[in-house]
Amino acid sequence: MPDRIDHVAIIVRDIEQALLFYRDTLGITPGEIQEVPTEQVRIAFLPLGGPGGSEIELIQPLTANSSLSKFLDKRGEGLHHICLEVPDIDAALAEMQAKGAAVLDTQPRIAAEGRAIFIHPKVANGVLLELVEKEK
Amino acid sequence: MPDRIDHVAIIVRDIEQALLFYRDTLGITPGEIQEVPTEQVRIAFLPLGGPGGSEIELIQPLTANSSLSKFLDKRGEGLHHICLEVPDIDAALAEMQAKGAAVLDTQPRIAAEGRAIFIHPKVANGVLLELVEKEK
Repeated sequence: MPDRIDHVAIIVRDIEQALLFYRDTLGITPGEIQEVPTEQVRIAFLPLGGPGGSEIELIQPLTANSSLSKFLDKRGEGLHHICLEVPDIDAALAEMQAKGAAVLDTQPRIAAEGRAIFIHPKVANGVLLELVEKEK
Repeated sequence: MPDRIDHVAIIVRDIEQALLFYRDTLGITPGEIQEVPTEQVRIAFLPLGGPGGSEIELIQPLTANSSLSKFLDKRGEGLHHICLEVPDIDAALAEMQAKGAAVLDTQPRIAAEGRAIFIHPKVANGVLLELVEKEK
C-alpha cells in the first residue's frame, strides 16, 4: 500500500509564467527550477505542508516530440499525474504485475525523486499514476 | 499562503468500480461513501499519509446536467481538481480577488470539508483549484 501522496504534477508551457500564479498570486515559495535531460523537461517543486508534506510539481517539456509535449499539445496545460510513495518499488512493481495492473515500466526508472514506475490511466480511472520509492 | 494539499479529486462514473482499483489493487482503505445532495454527487475519500496527510477524493456525479456530469461527458474520467487548505477562507477570498485571480465564488460555499472557494483553471495553468478552510 502507498504511504502518502508524494506530489501532484501539473504540465505547463513555461514554468516562469506558471510561477506568476503559483508563487506570486497563491504565495507558495518554489524550490529551484531543475533541468532533467533524460526526460527532456524542466521541473520545479512547490513544497507544501512542511517536511513530509505533499508537493505540487510543475513540468515544462523542452522538446517537441516527447510524450509530455504531445500530452500538452493534445490536452493543454493542467493536471498530469499523481505520484504516491511506496516503501519498496520492486515489491510494488511485482504486486501490480501480479494483480494485472497495466504497468508502463518493466523495471523501475530513475525519476527526479527516486526509483519509480508508472501505471496506465486505463486501469486507474483515467489517472496516470506514478509510484516512487524515495531516495533515502 | 496555503498550508498543505488537502486532497486531489478524481471524477469517476462509478465509485464502487473505481474502488476495485484504488482499494483492491492499490491497497488504500477508503472512508465511507457519502452522498452530498447539494452537489448531486457521491464521494469517497482515500486517506493517505496518516493524520494531516493529503487524501485522494473520488467523485461520482449523480445527475445528468450538473457541471460535474458535463465535465465527465466531455473529458472522461480522471483528475478533476486540487484542494489546498488555507487558515482563513475569507482572507484568502479577499486576497485572490484583490490580486485579480478569477474566483468562481463571490462568497465561500459549504463543501464536504469546510468553507471553500474555487479558482478558475484559466488563471491556474489549466488546473481547477479549491481553497478550503477546514472545520475545526
